[in-house]
Amino acid sequence: MFSTVLIANRGEIALRIARTCREMGIRTVAVCSDSDRDSAIARYADKCVRIGPSAARLSYLNPAAIVTAALQSGAEAVHPGYGFLSEDPDFAEICEANGLTFVGPSAALLRRLGDKAQAREIARAAGLPVLPGSSRSPASLEEAREVAALIGYPVIIKATAGGGGRGMTVVRDPREFGRSWARLRAVAQATFNDPRLYLEKFLENARHVEVQVLGDGNGDVIHLGERDCSVQRRRQKLVEETPAPGLPGELAERIRAAAVHAAREVRYAGAGTYEFLVGDDGDFVFMEVNCRIQVEHPVTEQVTGIDLVREQLRVAAGYGLSVTQEDVQPRGVAIEVRVNAEDPERGFLPTPGVLDEFLPPSGPFVRVDTHGFPGFRVTADYDPLLAKVTVWAPDRRQAIERVDRALAEFRVTGRGVHTTRDFLRRVVANPVFRAAKHTTGLVDEMAVEDAERLRLAG
Amino acid sequence: MFSTVLIANRGEIALRIARTCREMGIRTVAVCSDSDRDSAIARYADKCVRIGPSAARLSYLNPAAIVTAALQSGAEAVHPGYGFLSEDPDFAEICEANGLTFVGPSAALLRRLGDKAQAREIARAAGLPVLPGSSRSPASLEEAREVAALIGYPVIIKATAGGGGRGMTVVRDPREFGRSWARLRAVAQATFNDPRLYLEKFLENARHVEVQVLGDGNGDVIHLGERDCSVQRRRQKLVEETPAPGLPGELAERIRAAAVHAAREVRYAGAGTYEFLVGDDGDFVFMEVNCRIQVEHPVTEQVTGIDLVREQLRVAAGYGLSVTQEDVQPRGVAIEVRVNAEDPERGFLPTPGVLDEFLPPSGPFVRVDTHGFPGFRVTADYDPLLAKVTVWAPDRRQAIERVDRALAEFRVTGRGVHTTRDFLRRVVANPVFRAAKHTTGLVDEMAVEDAERLRLAG
Repeated sequence: MFSTVLIANRGEIALRIARTCREMGIRTVAVCSDSDRDSAIARYADKCVRIGPSAARLSYLNPAAIVTAALQSGAEAVHPGYGFLSEDPDFAEICEANGLTFVGPSAALLRRLGDKAQAREIARAAGLPVLPGSSRSPASLEEAREVAALIGYPVIIKATAGGGGRGMTVVRDPREFGRSWARLRAVAQATFNDPRLYLEKFLENARHVEVQVLGDGNGDVIHLGERDCSVQRRRQKLVEETPAPGLPGELAERIRAAAVHAAREVRYAGAGTYEFLVGDDGDFVFMEVNCRIQVEHPVTEQVTGIDLVREQLRVAAGYGLSVTQEDVQPRGVAIEVRVNAEDPERGFLPTPGVLDEFLPPSGPFVRVDTHGFPGFRVTADYDPLLAKVTVWAPDRRQAIERVDRALAEFRVTGRGVHTTRDFLRRVVANPVFRAAKHTTGLVDEMAVEDAERLRLAG
Repeated sequence: MFSTVLIANRGEIALRIARTCREMGIRTVAVCSDSDRDSAIARYADKCVRIGPSAARLSYLNPAAIVTAALQSGAEAVHPGYGFLSEDPDFAEICEANGLTFVGPSAALLRRLGDKAQAREIARAAGLPVLPGSSRSPASLEEAREVAALIGYPVIIKATAGGGGRGMTVVRDPREFGRSWARLRAVAQATFNDPRLYLEKFLENARHVEVQVLGDGNGDVIHLGERDCSVQRRRQKLVEETPAPGLPGELAERIRAAAVHAAREVRYAGAGTYEFLVGDDGDFVFMEVNCRIQVEHPVTEQVTGIDLVREQLRVAAGYGLSVTQEDVQPRGVAIEVRVNAEDPERGFLPTPGVLDEFLPPSGPFVRVDTHGFPGFRVTADYDPLLAKVTVWAPDRRQAIERVDRALAEFRVTGRGVHTTRDFLRRVVANPVFRAAKHTTGLVDEMAVEDAERLRLAG
């Protein structure tokens, strides 16, 4: 096993990776930007290397600084976490070129699956259902418009280099297509340094269902069950749970089998997630692959008992998986909620500031992954995630009662800082959510209901 | 189900009970002594009633004050937690006489099992193996001395009203018997208001193995597996785990069956623990029954997924158990360690003081039950338990690595306050513990080794 691993990330995921490393007897090297010098991971890791100023572009997105830190601190491997450089094939390549093991799929596979239009074609070739859409990035606005007309509105335009809910827009009116296309091209260029777009039919009232897979890189692939992540704001997940509630067993089985089949076809290595949409017609379509650990991986860990980061490290070090498909015996229900520093009443706008009080929940069947502490400064430079609260229970009703209890006891305040805590309590109290009849439209529907209530009251 | 429950306790267990109540939609009434007015449970509960000064005798051991608080706050039931009045038949009787449901066995059963000499006879009558000993409390020192001679030294003298490791002394030399007997009589009178003693053969190098049972009060009794609690200082548990490591499967099965049989014989109601000693000859003997929730119940919860406090409340409210024996499918290994405010280098003497820093561990598969916070005042009035850290893992090796990781990240400091944190890390690193070959003598053996090392170094 590796003796030293560099963690090329920040926040709760850096801490989470370091915890498993410590349990495995692996020395950890953290990296930090100037504004993260007093972070929880900077204190937790065996060593912390400053890699640049606060702007992510100059620190956590700076491959040269990270690789230099790894080489100078004697690291043998780099764990990229999620976000930042975690799915960047160039970064994986630079690591390998410098003799560092990149904990994740190969650069070649990241390149193929990171191009979302190509990933869609690979999935289709493997026999997975996909939505009607462009098989490659249209060469011009005219070609794109033709494809859209062919598919039929509404359509969703996506950046080929995007993923994880970033870089996409829905077009319902053909007259708006040109403007939306041009705007997203500019966003894609600015965000991903790649202006290419592709499009698909947009599925209304769908559920987001994803399958966690683990592969050894030699064609052995297992799944760890599925997660429902339909509760989203601006296509970013807020609540995740496993198993997917209200999903017929036979359909869930088909989705899991599709993910395993597709991952086997590409000889997937490490932890990956195949994302699908399930329509109200009860059928499913492939959406994308996330070639990294996901934010919501704790729900899978809590029902299976399997430490996903440990499996990633094992595969990267050449030890293969520690478990077979038969060993995966999910038990009960797990729900994760994301407590973000943002204001649900102002469109989930991030609210930077300093935490005054920070007392996360604990007790029976509650897991907290956080990097917060009293005095923690929430900056606009990074993702506003403060803490993930994950609960386990034998059934969904108890899990919902438990997550509400945990949220209720979470004390987090700070000047200027709003959080999603109370909004999340409203979500888990929502009758549509409780009945497991919600789709990705739930948060918007709640906003519409609120506006309606205000109008009636006013 | 009850709509309001009064929690007649303090510290982490009061909070733990309140958490389940909240999940079940039950309103909670806490009680507090003067020094606990700013406690975590005082803030957490829906209501908190001051019941007396700091001295436990005048507050948490004051039945009248507690029953008055319950009646005035509209509580329908009283959950006694552990320690204090939890096994006091008079308190259970006073509750019932005032129309309050006592969450635990009936006063009559508490009376029979609370008299440890009688409990031993009941167990023997049910066919359980017991150590040679006095079948009742000897009427005089002379009679006691005769019994001791008959049994053979070493013997252990116990207070009939004791239990939970309190009120007992080992006599190895017949010449010390008289003095030990007289001293323990005085202690028993002072501590339990009952001077009666009984005696048993003392088993050297034994392991403490106990079985968690749940009964519905009508003869339906199930077990939730066994726990090993051999790591003790002054007969108080420090580390507990399930399943009992190194215990042959057939022997474990016999011990569990014995506990279920004995509990069925008395139509046990609620959560109870049958405690046994397992000798190095591989045989087991009954020790005592604890008629309440145990400090170490979280390890059982983490491997079975069953919320024991919920089951207690269900049984007390007449709903019976929510699970059958078949539903109990323990998975993996759980270890709990007790972080106490006491100094292992001075015989585990409690160290009162104020906590400065208090940051418990978290992350994957770690559960913390605590009432601590920065600014918390540890007083000499109560039990020095600060936090219980419970980890789960698929196997014992990983559980040990995880508990060490969790302890390492626990930051707890305060002027004058020492804790067992570092000592616990030494225990889980100890090769005898790792090999699961430890007995109740482990902590003393570690102290002897330390003294030897010091002698050689000096």
